[in-house]
Amino acid sequence: MASVTPWEAKGNIDYDRLIQEFGTQPLDKTLQARLIRIAGEDHHFLRRDIFFSHRDMKWLLDEYEKGNKFFLYTGRAPSGPIHLGHLLPWLFTKWLQDKFHVRLLFQFTDEEKFLFKEGLTLTEAKHWLEDNMLDVAAIGFDPELTDFLIDTKHAGMMYPEAIKVAKRVTFSTAKAVFGMTNQTNLGAIFYTAMQAVPAFLPSIYANKKIPCFIPHGIDQDPHFRVTRDVLPKIGFDKPAAIHCRFLPGLGGMESDGKMSASDASTAIFTTDDQKTVKRKIMKYAFSGGQATTEEHRKAGGNPDVDVAYQWLTFFEEDDHKLKRYYEDYKSGKLLTGELKQILVDKINAFLKEHQARREQLKGKLDRFIIKDEAAFERYQ
Amino acid sequence: MASVTPWEAKGNIDYDRLIQEFGTQPLDKTLQARLIRIAGEDHHFLRRDIFFSHRDMKWLLDEYEKGNKFFLYTGRAPSGPIHLGHLLPWLFTKWLQDKFHVRLLFQFTDEEKFLFKEGLTLTEAKHWLEDNMLDVAAIGFDPELTDFLIDTKHAGMMYPEAIKVAKRVTFSTAKAVFGMTNQTNLGAIFYTAMQAVPAFLPSIYANKKIPCFIPHGIDQDPHFRVTRDVLPKIGFDKPAAIHCRFLPGLGGMESDGKMSASDASTAIFTTDDQKTVKRKIMKYAFSGGQATTEEHRKAGGNPDVDVAYQWLTFFEEDDHKLKRYYEDYKSGKLLTGELKQILVDKINAFLKEHQARREQLKGKLDRFIIKDEAAFERYQ
Repeated sequence: MASVTPWEAKGNIDYDRLIQEFGTQPLDKTLQARLIRIAGEDHHFLRRDIFFSHRDMKWLLDEYEKGNKFFLYTGRAPSGPIHLGHLLPWLFTKWLQDKFHVRLLFQFTDEEKFLFKEGLTLTEAKHWLEDNMLDVAAIGFDPELTDFLIDTKHAGMMYPEAIKVAKRVTFSTAKAVFGMTNQTNLGAIFYTAMQAVPAFLPSIYANKKIPCFIPHGIDQDPHFRVTRDVLPKIGFDKPAAIHCRFLPGLGGMESDGKMSASDASTAIFTTDDQKTVKRKIMKYAFSGGQATTEEHRKAGGNPDVDVAYQWLTFFEEDDHKLKRYYEDYKSGKLLTGELKQILVDKINAFLKEHQARREQLKGKLDRFIIKDEAAFERYQ
Repeated sequence: MASVTPWEAKGNIDYDRLIQEFGTQPLDKTLQARLIRIAGEDHHFLRRDIFFSHRDMKWLLDEYEKGNKFFLYTGRAPSGPIHLGHLLPWLFTKWLQDKFHVRLLFQFTDEEKFLFKEGLTLTEAKHWLEDNMLDVAAIGFDPELTDFLIDTKHAGMMYPEAIKVAKRVTFSTAKAVFGMTNQTNLGAIFYTAMQAVPAFLPSIYANKKIPCFIPHGIDQDPHFRVTRDVLPKIGFDKPAAIHCRFLPGLGGMESDGKMSASDASTAIFTTDDQKTVKRKIMKYAFSGGQATTEEHRKAGGNPDVDVAYQWLTFFEEDDHKLKRYYEDYKSGKLLTGELKQILVDKINAFLKEHQARREQLKGKLDRFIIKDEAAFERYQ
């Protein structure tokens, strides 16, 4: 049985069922085509249904075409190193920023994991905040269009807004949406109000409703369901959202669930060196191949369960290449080791550039971090 | 049946039973005498048991005599005008500040009533914040030793500390201590963590444990019970506290409960003019006298239920005068109208000075309001 909450995603996930359960909309071909038309460019995350679900995107694009630009909002709860799975919504967010030339408000919820994980200290969270900000900046967001909002640092702006949300959400709702119990702590109970704030903070300072568009992993939807429920009650529009599938851990979705930083053998981190990437993929990536080369040549592999192939659907932009890998693996022409090497090369090429940008950005994050309320004047 | 919670105090309150129920300590004569000895002066709030209960005052005075000065912490939730009942703990706080020459951290919980009262807007709360700050400053606190901490304004300093408290308090505890239910909103649930913060905020910046002493109405004890439970778990000492009785409303404790701003006929506000004070006391103060002058002269009055007399125990510092009023009223020598006039004169003399200070302070509150973290360096 698959389980998807803001804290866990495990099992073979039936994404159609998730759309039904969460009450989101499937990202159908018409809407996809419209997004691509306005963007002026296609994206393999779209045509491969990696972004597969949404809320209110039709409204968002209507507003955009009327000249009412949206801003992007996404985020990260610092509690460990960044792995490839974390990057998916951010890579797509960068593409949206580039194509639509819109601002991005990136929230670092540096209190979230402190409140939800017994063992994590605020000092550790602060360490990971610094580390994670580097990775986010290294995605290549435009510093002129990007603002980092940090919950503990910017609480002065956020708490007075969060209470407006919090007043409109009962413990009953928190129980139903997040599975909270009598043993949940008061900070964890309140937290969802802090995650709602970026969706309307620019509207507060602009003194007009600015549409908000949130690319995120589908597991965060419960938070934004609360946000969407409350915002119209306090004078703002519901934010629109676009949801992506999970990158499976190296052991595959059924065994590992979505990629998780807590098990180093299932995740590839942005700071892993080329050898480590190769070793992890060669050793741990669940294979759809046969037990011996002979058998594989004869019977062929199963790309649909092969993690190396699955990952290539996320990281190989070229449809022709991907199709060839699929067919060659299925026919037995491509061996598991060869398919894995293709993935290793792809990931290492990506990480080489990412790590170079990461190094360059050390000590240079200040220009991303919000200084004061004036930052929001640029959202109008 | 008397009911005492942070939101209500009604009925004939049995203060001994409250000590038992809340688990506080009676302020016995030995401790009272020690406080008076160190202060170098007596206070009628002490010798009349208006401050009747405490937590950890022995420890606090031990520390003080070892040279480890405490700071005072008290507060106010702005949601309406200030009445005489609000002033009691503040008047005593001023006396403590003067006698012990210690800093006062005064918290304005300007989000509290917004979160707990359905109808109150943040704009109204802000209006009352400005108004109430004037009254607090008009008490005569030393501006050099007093800092106003405002929850929404200083959330940047407070929220990162509040989450440390919030992590250690479960919803179970909030249910047991505050009677919270599934219908309570998330902000109200979190709120007690914000009220805990001033008790250790100076210790954070001083990087050492500074004893904290909280004079307050006994009804706020549930909040500080939570604070005292959590602080040792996050590296701080439990704050000490001293608790005062309630000033009854004009109709008396049984009918009105403690003085409340929500019924103008039971309260005298700091901004009431001399005529209004006289009218309210003459018209509404519950009388322990007889129906006619003749009967009163013969049978005498009952000062123990007479509100004018009760109030004089709070506002007439002179024991001899008070004793005379008691005896003369009981004997029938003093009529109800005469006793009320004595009270009117006393209150009006007090308010005349208070209102003059209040006027003088208009536009001059900035020196009380905390500018930045540097304020806390003065607490060491």
